[in-house]
Amino acid sequence: MKSLARSFYDSPMRPEKIEELSFATIDREAPAHNFSEEEWIIVRRMIHSTANFELAKYTRMSPDAMESATNALSSGKHIYVDSNMLKAGISAARLKSIFPGYTKDMIHCHVADADVAAEAKESGMPRSLHAIRKAKDKLADGGMFCFGNSPVALMELSRMILEDGVKPSLVVAMPVGFVNVVESKDEFMSLGVPFVGISGRFGGSSIAVSTIHSLCAIAVERKKNSEQ
Amino acid sequence: MKSLARSFYDSPMRPEKIEELSFATIDREAPAHNFSEEEWIIVRRMIHSTANFELAKYTRMSPDAMESATNALSSGKHIYVDSNMLKAGISAARLKSIFPGYTKDMIHCHVADADVAAEAKESGMPRSLHAIRKAKDKLADGGMFCFGNSPVALMELSRMILEDGVKPSLVVAMPVGFVNVVESKDEFMSLGVPFVGISGRFGGSSIAVSTIHSLCAIAVERKKNSEQ
Repeated sequence: MKSLARSFYDSPMRPEKIEELSFATIDREAPAHNFSEEEWIIVRRMIHSTANFELAKYTRMSPDAMESATNALSSGKHIYVDSNMLKAGISAARLKSIFPGYTKDMIHCHVADADVAAEAKESGMPRSLHAIRKAKDKLADGGMFCFGNSPVALMELSRMILEDGVKPSLVVAMPVGFVNVVESKDEFMSLGVPFVGISGRFGGSSIAVSTIHSLCAIAVERKKNSEQ
Repeated sequence: MKSLARSFYDSPMRPEKIEELSFATIDREAPAHNFSEEEWIIVRRMIHSTANFELAKYTRMSPDAMESATNALSSGKHIYVDSNMLKAGISAARLKSIFPGYTKDMIHCHVADADVAAEAKESGMPRSLHAIRKAKDKLADGGMFCFGNSPVALMELSRMILEDGVKPSLVVAMPVGFVNVVESKDEFMSLGVPFVGISGRFGGSSIAVSTIHSLCAIAVERKKNSEQ
């Protein structure tokens, strides 16, 4: 029998075509929902990156999320991420599509920094907590924060919003797991800060990356429409 | 009301403790299964990284997977990965725990290489296909392959196994999505190569990373036991 690869060589599909077919499948199989067209762009890509249709049930967005996020991306705001997987996954090309000056250096992650590791050893608390503290000054005024892993980092951001006057332009609130995760999201989502998040236990780097990519696409589309 | 972060400062938890509590929750809530103790280490960490208990239904391992993977890791075999997120996510410290000579440079990813992009433009086929071809010579004899994204790369690996004599010591077969994904896994899993995989549509970088980390822990444990 012919291998799948050989069949694929005979009638290759471009990545854009594969994505289009995938999105059509998701649209067809997704449960009924009340997301707006723009919101569905985000949720659909989350499902695309996980094959987990349950995400449609748990995704939450603040009413101001789309406006605030597209403004932030259009003006090249810096982004804090809670893992180097997220930094690796966020495409510079997609960021540049909405703000040509974006570079990978504008995505900050401090969890693997030596000083952060030393502080964590000293305090007995997770590196993710010391890492986000380190990013505070650069991100405090309208930065974006993107969490796919650490509920402790999200908790610390909530504290910085409450106590230190940190004002994010967007928070992607998608830590994953079983300890402090649900609680950290519930607390954060009550603060009145623009966010795209997932309530409950689901989350992860891939979903968080896909959200940033969707927001870039939405920002590009909004810009096009405003220029017509 | 006191913020969660302030409560956490008052009674901080070390990361090891958080992980232990998470694993206990997963053990308690997981559906009945027939995984061996070592296999469950892998599946449990997959659930830990996604909060998706469905993975217990879809995870498959070849009978020789554990033996072959732990031997490969213990002797420092090179690893091919299908995304830079995977490369960023795999911990050098965990690899070094079983083979001190491991470095990040022994994890290969070619999807973002300029020559691969040029070939893909020329052929109209995905970069992931040209990327894995580029890795062939270095990985052909007992290398490990780790897929969390691209079914086309997995299809091409199956072809290389069938036609070119490529002999992986382990394949982590977890591409995710809706086009060619189920088929590429079914084909690959029939080839008699050692693997840990997920049948169906589920997959992703985080789960694939977690599998490599679990295999490192299992290899360390086996080594300890063999030395007693």
